[in-house]
Formats: sequence, C-alpha cells, structure tokens
Amino acid sequence: MQIFDTTLRDGAQSEGISYSVADKLAVARLLDEFGVGFIEGGWPGAMPKDTEFFRRAREELELKHAKLVAFGSTRKAGVHVEEDPLVRAMLDTLTPVVCFFAKSDIRHVERALRTTPEENLAMVHDTVSFFVANGRRVFLDCEHFFDGFRYDPDYATEVARAAFGAGAERVVLCDTNGGMLPSWISAAIGDLTARLGVSPSLLGIHCQNDTGCAVANTIAAVEAGVEHVQGTANGYGERPGNADIFAVVANIQLKLGRTVLPDGCLEQMVRVSHAIAEIANIAPDTHQAYVGAAAFAHKAGIHASAIKVDPVLYNHVDPIVVGNDMKILVTEMAGRASIELKSRELGLDLAGRPEVAASVTDQVKQREAEGWSYEAADASFELLVRGALGEITSPFTLESYRVIVEHREDGAVVSEGTVKVRVRGERIIATAEGNGPVNALDEALRTALSKHFPQLASLELTDYKVRILEGSHGTGAITRVLLETTDDLTTWVTVGVHENVVEASWHALVDALTYGLSRTKT
Amino acid sequence: MQIFDTTLRDGAQSEGISYSVADKLAVARLLDEFGVGFIEGGWPGAMPKDTEFFRRAREELELKHAKLVAFGSTRKAGVHVEEDPLVRAMLDTLTPVVCFFAKSDIRHVERALRTTPEENLAMVHDTVSFFVANGRRVFLDCEHFFDGFRYDPDYATEVARAAFGAGAERVVLCDTNGGMLPSWISAAIGDLTARLGVSPSLLGIHCQNDTGCAVANTIAAVEAGVEHVQGTANGYGERPGNADIFAVVANIQLKLGRTVLPDGCLEQMVRVSHAIAEIANIAPDTHQAYVGAAAFAHKAGIHASAIKVDPVLYNHVDPIVVGNDMKILVTEMAGRASIELKSRELGLDLAGRPEVAASVTDQVKQREAEGWSYEAADASFELLVRGALGEITSPFTLESYRVIVEHREDGAVVSEGTVKVRVRGERIIATAEGNGPVNALDEALRTALSKHFPQLASLELTDYKVRILEGSHGTGAITRVLLETTDDLTTWVTVGVHENVVEASWHALVDALTYGLSRTKT
Repeated sequence: MQIFDTTLRDGAQSEGISYSVADKLAVARLLDEFGVGFIEGGWPGAMPKDTEFFRRAREELELKHAKLVAFGSTRKAGVHVEEDPLVRAMLDTLTPVVCFFAKSDIRHVERALRTTPEENLAMVHDTVSFFVANGRRVFLDCEHFFDGFRYDPDYATEVARAAFGAGAERVVLCDTNGGMLPSWISAAIGDLTARLGVSPSLLGIHCQNDTGCAVANTIAAVEAGVEHVQGTANGYGERPGNADIFAVVANIQLKLGRTVLPDGCLEQMVRVSHAIAEIANIAPDTHQAYVGAAAFAHKAGIHASAIKVDPVLYNHVDPIVVGNDMKILVTEMAGRASIELKSRELGLDLAGRPEVAASVTDQVKQREAEGWSYEAADASFELLVRGALGEITSPFTLESYRVIVEHREDGAVVSEGTVKVRVRGERIIATAEGNGPVNALDEALRTALSKHFPQLASLELTDYKVRILEGSHGTGAITRVLLETTDDLTTWVTVGVHENVVEASWHALVDALTYGLSRTKT
Repeated sequence: MQIFDTTLRDGAQSEGISYSVADKLAVARLLDEFGVGFIEGGWPGAMPKDTEFFRRAREELELKHAKLVAFGSTRKAGVHVEEDPLVRAMLDTLTPVVCFFAKSDIRHVERALRTTPEENLAMVHDTVSFFVANGRRVFLDCEHFFDGFRYDPDYATEVARAAFGAGAERVVLCDTNGGMLPSWISAAIGDLTARLGVSPSLLGIHCQNDTGCAVANTIAAVEAGVEHVQGTANGYGERPGNADIFAVVANIQLKLGRTVLPDGCLEQMVRVSHAIAEIANIAPDTHQAYVGAAAFAHKAGIHASAIKVDPVLYNHVDPIVVGNDMKILVTEMAGRASIELKSRELGLDLAGRPEVAASVTDQVKQREAEGWSYEAADASFELLVRGALGEITSPFTLESYRVIVEHREDGAVVSEGTVKVRVRGERIIATAEGNGPVNALDEALRTALSKHFPQLASLELTDYKVRILEGSHGTGAITRVLLETTDDLTTWVTVGVHENVVEASWHALVDALTYGLSRTKT
C-alpha cells in the first residue's frame, strides 16, 4: 500500500494557508517521521516557492521513509513534450517519482483545455513515456475522474489506458470536485477495472471532502482493491479540504488491519498532526478524529463509572496507539465517579476520602448551575479539590480593586487598575495601566504580589475567552471567562463567572496566579 | 424519511458547549426553520436545565415542522417502570414522541449495567409498552449496537426484537463509540434485518465520527434502506462529534435525490448552521462541507478563468441551493460583486454608484483585515453603506466616556459609566450604574440621549457576544463584540472591534443605537 501525502501541494491550496520554503521543509520532515511513503512537495516551475523548495530539499532534506515527488501536468496541447517548460521543471527537480495530472473528463478537455480528445490522449502518452524514458516512476492523477467517468465512461477509461500503455506505475482516480459517495466510488472502480482488464491494485485514489465523505470514499477505494491513497495532514485543502491522511491511515491500519506505516510511526500521529497545524498557523481541531485533544474525551456522567472499570467498552481504539490519551471532562452531567476519576488523572486520590469527594461534587454541581464550567478549566478544578483537601491556601487576600477605562477627548483609550491586597500580613496598594481592563488588573495584581512572589514574573497569560451564558438579558447577562496561562513548562486554564465581565475575569486571574504559585513552591 | 436532530441532547455533550435554556429554545427554533422532523430537546429529570427547557418549550415554543422529543433511558433494573423517576420525567414533558436508549451490547449489560440479559430485555419491553400505552410514539436507541452486534449478534437482535414486539415505531442503531466504517454498517443492517425479518425502513441510524466517517456511515445506512437518520448541527457532539445533520441532509437530498425537507428549507442551511454556531459560541468551520464560508471557494489560479465561464464543471452542486455562494479568492472583483449583492439584499442599490461600491469595498476589506466581521452584523454593514451614500449621520458626537468597575471592601461589585456627548449642539454629561461596564455605559449613553431621542427607551439589548481573535497575546488580544438589539418589531446585530473590550463594546453600542434611531425616523 502506497501512502502518498500531498499536504505541501494540494493541501497548500487551502484558504488561509501559506507556507514559506522553510515551513515546507519542516512539514516534509514531520511527514517523514509519520512514515508516509511519498511526499508531494509542490509544482516546480508554476510556483517559484516550490521550485526553491525542491532545490533546497536536494541539499537539506534527509528522508528516512518517504520519497519526494514533484507535481505538474501533462505537456500542453500542441507542444513537444521535451520543449514544455513545466515538464522540464519537474524533470529538473531530480525527484525519483513524478506525479502529474491529466484531464479525464471529456467536458474539461473540450471546454477548459479546448483541445481534441485525441490530443489529450497523446499528451498523456507522451508525458508518461518521457518520464519513464528518463528513469522516473510515474503516477498519473486523472483529474475530475469520477465526474468524467459518470458522464463518459469510455473516454475516462481511454485516458487511464493511455497512461498504463505508456508505462505509468499508478493511475490515480481523483474526485476533484469532491461530490462522490462511498458506494459511487466502489461502483466506478469495479466498472473501470472490468473495462481496463487491470487489477485495482494499480489504481490510486484522491478524494476531496465536499460531501463530508473524503475519508470514507478513500476507505471504500481501498476495500475495492486500490493500493495507493492520497491525502493531506488534517485534511487541509481547497474548499472543505482533502481526505485527512491521519484518519485514512489510522482506519487502514486499525480498522482494516493492514500495517502500512513503519514500526513506531502510528504513535507519532498526534504529535505530527499538531506540529503541522502549528506550522500552518491553524488552531488544531479539538474534535478531529483520532488526533483531536477531545477525540477520546468523555463527558457523559452516565458513562463515567463504567469507563473507570472498563475503558475498552467506551473507546473505539486504544488512544495510546495513535499517541493520544483519554480525558474525562468534569461537567454538570458528572457524578461523583467522574470527579474521582478526574482527580486521579490530576494525581489526587479521593477514593479514601469519600467526604471530600462528596463535598467537591456538591460544589461543582452548584457552581455549574451558576454557570461555572470546569471541563476546560483543569487548574480551577484542581484548586477546588486541593482546597477541599486542605492542601492549598490563597497567597493573598483582596481588600478591594478598581479599574477605570477612559475614552479621552483626544480619542485615546486607556485602562488603569488598582488593587489593595494583604500578603503575609502586609497591606499593599498597586496601580498599573493595561490595554484593557483585565490586562490592567493583571498588571496591578502582579505588581502588588511581586515583592513576595517574584516567580510570578515568569507567568504569561496566553489566551482569554469570554462566553455570555444567558442571552436574554443583554449586557446584564452572566459572563464566563476562561484564562490560559503558561510558565513555559506547562499551560493551565482557569475559569471565572460573574454578571460583571471584570469580576469574572478577576476570579479566573486569581486562580491562574494561585495555581502558578502552587506549582513553583515558594 | 425521518430527519431526527439531537443537537440539544447528544450534541450538547460536546466539549466546550454549554447551552442556557434560552439558547436551547433559540436552537430549537432554528432547527425547525431548517425543517427537521424531530428535535430531541434533552434528558428531563437527569439534567435540571433540560426539565426546565421542556417546561418552557410547552409555553413558548411554536414549531412549524418539527415534533419535540424527550430523551431518557429504559427503566432501571429491578424497578417497576411506573415508579422509575426518569421514565416519569420523560412522560411529564408531554412530548408526542419519546426516544430512549437501551443497552444492546451484552458486555455493557453485564459489566456496566450489572444485570442479566433477560432483565435488560424486560426493561426494553416494559418501557416501550409503557409509553405506547400512554399514547406516545417510541423510538428506541440501541446504544453500542454495532459493537454489540459484532460481538454477539443474537443478543443485539433480541433487544431490537423486544422493542418492536412492544410497539416501538423505530429501532435506532447507534454507533456509540463511533468506530464503524460504511461497509460494516451496510453489512450489519443486512444481517440484522434478515434475522429480524423486518424491513430496514423500520430502523434508524445514529453515528459518531470517531473514524471520520459519520456522514458516510449514515448515508450507507440510508442506501441499505434505513428511513430515520439522526445527526447534530455542524456535527457537534462528544469526542469527534456526531454525524453533521447538514451534510447528511444535503447528501440525501442532492446526491441520493430524495426530498426530505419541506420546500424552501434547504436554502436555510448556511444561515441556520452559522446561527447555531453563534449560539454555541463556536467559530463556524470555514471548511465545513456545504455550509462553510470556503466550501465553494476556489483558490487555484489554474481554475479561475474556467470557473467563471463554466462554474458547473467546478462545483459538485450549485452553492445557492444550500444558501451558500461561490467565492473566488484573491480576485478583487468578487469582493465588490458580493458587496453589491449584499447591499441589494438590504434594499440599497449600488449598481449605479460604482465609486460608492468601491469605497465600501475598500473600507470593508481594511476593517476585516483588522478583525471586523460583517457576516453576522448586518446593521453595522448597512450603516457603513448608508454612510457612504450620505444617507446617515451620527445622532451625537462623543467627547469622552469613562467607566469604573470597583470590587469594594464589603465584596460588592459596582460599575459606573459616565459619557460626555454633544447632541444637536448641546453638551450633555450623564452618569449611570450598571451590572457590568458595558451595561453602565449603555445606561449612561441612553440617559444622555433621552431628551432628544425619547424613542431609545424602547430599544433593548438582547444579546452580547465576545470573541477573542488573536490568541497569542493573552489579555492584550483583539476583541470582537457582537451586540443584538431589538425594538420589539425587529432585531439587529452590530459589531465592534478593539484591543480593549470596553471600547469594542462601545463601537457596537453606538452602531446599535444609531441603527435603532435610523429606523424610528425622528
């Protein structure tokens, strides 16, 4: 089975993605660590960045598992193959494999390419022969294959036949517009192989996700005997994207039971997925199949007690095999069992302390009824449990705070916060400015605490989310704030709830600093 | 075909989603506008919020297309069905339909439920009979059906048989762990119906997305003859989520050619999808099949000219039928064309005013680069266009404002806003309190304007949403505020963006009042 990744070529067509050459090299290294067989790096000649990528790849890129592939198209109509500059650009990359597209839908040949059916077949034949003669392995992408085959199966078959006749190693059937369903893919492959008289193992599959079925369509092709699958990391690609290569590979390996990655590679999946998201500058999808942070997260209280006993009954695969892990969410639906389980995950054993477990459960339920939510705020939850266990005390007591936001006559908007606190018996007043009310309070509080807790300087607030809980009272609604804080080693999330957004933020802020201090052990 | 939505029940299990009762009512109205046949509203008795939802739904919710469904479980083991409080809670909702789950995997019966196979069958029989005797339509969710059927097909079949024997209208096969592939779904359905001797049209399907195949699995079931599909808006749900009901319905209607929604409903899909995302406070997925903003966006330079001539060759369906539109990225013309189109939608003809269209396009582009978004803020967009047309002037000019939030020594949190404005030549200073900084500013501004614009008293802010756009600078991030305002006749949404949440809110607030005044014509 050939695992062919096109993150750097077709995946780079995604709205919102723009890789530098260095990005592309980094992505290629990651894909190689994931163990794919082929990495399509780009379209040399057509995109200057891709030409540069292949040049630098020759010097800098050492791949352990994958072969690099240059992408392109058949020669232009009416041009000799050796004189087509884009064909030459592919050849010049010196990659051992080339993959180029041909039109296989007669309507595209006539209306978009504006050439004859015969010339298009000659273009396929000439270009495949040229690369074979030059010692390259050739994969031919039949663009718009499935639409073309449904419209005119004879012509689409001729294109595939021309490619095989000229020595192509694989003919890749592309659902370019992404409109197929799995049963349609299976039927077309059965029909095509009967017409061609070839084994489906010589075919490849390339699916777009416009019906939400790209992964399933790819798997349907594999079940029909196809032995070459194309996809992109996290399904990045034009419109709704391509088949997600992570889900495709995990399904082939874990569901169809065929080992297609080198040993030890499947466990790299979560790491590689998130690292590529980082490079693409796209927030990882929490709910992505197999690799999402919530892919194995259980919320329903009814399951929690059973999950504790028998996790295999509630996970379709063991999360560890793809480098993920199981997460238990603390929510209003949770009973005591999931609170105990969650605490154990955080290293706090409540099993021997039933009165603490009961009191934490009551507190969580009451607070969640008021709008608090601990499912994304592990640090606030941990503080609550450690507080109930008597392990944590607050590093300071608040006397009062005040924050002022002014839009001045000159148009400047300024925020100023003042806090009055007691720290180890000392009364401290501090004032600071910020670019918003919460930032100003954060600065003022850190200033006030800095003498006693200099380690607070290393903490940084990295994310701030606000959610209004009750939509029917306008600005008088209940506000929930989630704060993400980091100390470079780790990241934690805290929560605050109040009808006043500033007070809600204050709660989350105090938890964030308290948690940070509990980690650094003064 | 029954289209059964469980956004408010199973979809509410999604990590990061927490609906208020008002949210749930709003989502139910939207789903009804989309034309689903059944809306599963929640689990009465188990969740206080859901009990409250059904109570308020009886009084407030008028549904045009959908029937409301209460969810629950079979009676507990060893308890008489009439005495099971959760069964009674379902009955008390008075919904015409109930849908409850039963264990159909023998391992779950024995290890999680800890009862006998026989008692589990009796629980199914008793509970179905009870609701049928009480005049309710019954759908039975067979939890973990596919895993159970693969492990012990005889027992899973018995559970379905018991449900039908007691009068269930549909037995819904659930892929609770989400580990199935389409071909496995088809095979299990074929095998089950042969064993049961019933038509597959009496079965339902409920898929989770853990293999990335939930939509395809659902479609495979429909192709196997199933006539009841469950899904959630945007695929929200636990772990990787449920089958996205939008993709499922679009595939059934546009790919399988079966009309399953009332006339005019499919075109509501994009609007309903985005509105539910707003309520869930989850950024809409740009790349979501059918409904994503980029679902029909073409980037590839090679296609652009051909697409213009022959769009049908490059779109798997016409985007208009699902309420979406085709976007060609990076072409300036597309921007202006869609602004003209949008303006026409609002009754403003820019076709004869190319300089105005160009200036609005430039402003929108620049502001969107800064983080503004007019997609959900029609009123702010209309003000922008009417401003460019010279039709609207601001009702006042701001000199300055100031807002103070204090957490006092006694624990009270108070907010006070002061605005200094000029209205029709008069300088006015007004101060007001509020339960948060934005509410205080809103009150102060209305007080200042009330003498000249008494009609402002009838406006009410009905929703307030905050989204942080840039996650990397903590509380210094850019903040986008959406305000919803109503004058009882209509509702409008305005937007404000600034690094300071108060200033962002101020922009949205000023737009909200300006728009309200432009409607009442002083």
